[in-house]
Amino acid sequence: MIGVTMGDPCGIGAEVIVKALADPAVRALGRFIIYGLDEILSYAADRAEINPFWFRLPHEQVSTIESGVVVADFDEYTLFDPTLRRPTAEGGHASLRFVDEAIEAARAGRVDAIVTGPIHKTSWQLAGYRRPGHTEKIGDAFGVEHPTMMFAAGDLRVALATVHIGIAEVPGVLNIGCVFRAIEHLAQALKHWWGIADARIAVAGLNPHAGEGGRFGDEELRVIEPAMTMAKAAGCRVEGPFPPDTLFVEERRRRFHGIVAMYHDQALIPVKLLAFHSAVNVTLGVPILRTSVDHGTAFDIAGKNVAHPGSLSAALALACELADRVKSASRTPARASGSAVNGVK
Amino acid sequence: MIGVTMGDPCGIGAEVIVKALADPAVRALGRFIIYGLDEILSYAADRAEINPFWFRLPHEQVSTIESGVVVADFDEYTLFDPTLRRPTAEGGHASLRFVDEAIEAARAGRVDAIVTGPIHKTSWQLAGYRRPGHTEKIGDAFGVEHPTMMFAAGDLRVALATVHIGIAEVPGVLNIGCVFRAIEHLAQALKHWWGIADARIAVAGLNPHAGEGGRFGDEELRVIEPAMTMAKAAGCRVEGPFPPDTLFVEERRRRFHGIVAMYHDQALIPVKLLAFHSAVNVTLGVPILRTSVDHGTAFDIAGKNVAHPGSLSAALALACELADRVKSASRTPARASGSAVNGVK
Repeated sequence: MIGVTMGDPCGIGAEVIVKALADPAVRALGRFIIYGLDEILSYAADRAEINPFWFRLPHEQVSTIESGVVVADFDEYTLFDPTLRRPTAEGGHASLRFVDEAIEAARAGRVDAIVTGPIHKTSWQLAGYRRPGHTEKIGDAFGVEHPTMMFAAGDLRVALATVHIGIAEVPGVLNIGCVFRAIEHLAQALKHWWGIADARIAVAGLNPHAGEGGRFGDEELRVIEPAMTMAKAAGCRVEGPFPPDTLFVEERRRRFHGIVAMYHDQALIPVKLLAFHSAVNVTLGVPILRTSVDHGTAFDIAGKNVAHPGSLSAALALACELADRVKSASRTPARASGSAVNGVK
Repeated sequence: MIGVTMGDPCGIGAEVIVKALADPAVRALGRFIIYGLDEILSYAADRAEINPFWFRLPHEQVSTIESGVVVADFDEYTLFDPTLRRPTAEGGHASLRFVDEAIEAARAGRVDAIVTGPIHKTSWQLAGYRRPGHTEKIGDAFGVEHPTMMFAAGDLRVALATVHIGIAEVPGVLNIGCVFRAIEHLAQALKHWWGIADARIAVAGLNPHAGEGGRFGDEELRVIEPAMTMAKAAGCRVEGPFPPDTLFVEERRRRFHGIVAMYHDQALIPVKLLAFHSAVNVTLGVPILRTSVDHGTAFDIAGKNVAHPGSLSAALALACELADRVKSASRTPARASGSAVNGVK
């Protein structure tokens, strides 16, 4: 059972959800509750010439569902004009509400994972929410001060030590704690969610050539290596820090189950190059499973029926895969150690 | 006529040169003078089971050659043990000498381009040379204070505004001048060396999402946009600053003839991912053509006959291509405007 949030009603969220779940192969992976607006979803389906494949229920009547797709409709928000295609307080209020409802459903065990559609930070700010986005909202809901953002696309799994800050701030924000936390969160997720018991993790350097022994910056020596030492003491199998420019090349990358990157673009440049339509954003370090599209509201193309549902399809499929694994692991506590993915022995 | 420098005698330079030029298709592209040590080249050829395809001449006797490959031999450096496989003063002295000789040959017009094998910065420092590498050495030889480093692999052409500095230093070093210079050098090279008269250039932002209007850093507003305004005033067709994580994705990248990146790994992560064995380092802003391998001396695999000559082959081929174009342009000054590469209209 997967909870799907529609995202900002003015963005492409409804369109990619309808397109992704129109695929019977995706629907066969689980049962889905869409927290959103039936009217907007119907409009998107109409534009895409997709026959509605869901049941609508007022959101307060939705608890569990037997099969298929249910839209938990928040029709108190429908007074609002979705053709605005820009950040609005109304869009912020509605999309915040969908997420809050999905989080509560996950907390109560009514859904096994949540998949979030794209929201706009400015809409959330106009609606009075001051934190950057989903990842922080979910962290706050569970009292986790620093969740870790991760991107996954098949065997490529990258966790970030720092996220939405300018390059000038990265060296000041990057400390032993945040590098250690990203390694630890990634190791735990690879173990419990991906079923890889003894995962090998590569850690990127911050600087060109990983600093060349201090010649181009000392964060590798002063921050990253001590964090790796701590992670090893905590039982993680970790190697590095590696020169960032060659770490993502396949022959290097395939030796590892996951990579820890130091800053946003160090992770996102290779992730977008290697998996433009299939990368999934996963939140690590929180007690619920949450995946997300890796793109934004794309107001510029909203309502035009040209959005690509690839990232949302991948986010739905990964949520179902991870939820299945977590459930089957909880039924068989003494399970075998992790599979030998990526050719790692 | 191409001058090729052997690089550090303890590294993989000799091996990749011998392997690359063993290919008759590469030799057919031009005439080649290798500035290096005949003994080391012969040893590498022997290990690779390649029959010597060159003539040896003492370097002081080499001026022009009619065809094929000549080794301009510096046998005064052969007292030295190449099996050391580490930075040495002797390796530094020899590899500095090869480069100096090649630069003088280019200055005198005896070669049309130079292709440099891998040197080691520490060897150069042990030999008393204090600047970082080839790019600076060539700049110094022509009184160019700030040459621009560029990487080219087919249609992917990326010039760098800053190079070998730590991430913490990038925001302080990046200024309007160095961004403008990289744009201008790239535009000139695309015009005169690649024959693209009205090249479209994309400029990357520094920060995630190109700063999102100042939310994650203000260098886009304070530095990059003013540099772009200057470049437009100087006649460059330039767009941006673009979010760095999607700029290198093919559907975005193919709209441009070249990209200006703000820092080392912003360029090198995508270059290594897209063209691991075929990326060529090109020096812009100097009056001679110079290409280079994009890898180092690789002391760890030197002498083992496992080095891949792909990057050197690509550097030789690009040097020949650019030299041909420059020569034919100088014969026909009023040439047609640039070809419509990359589908750019």
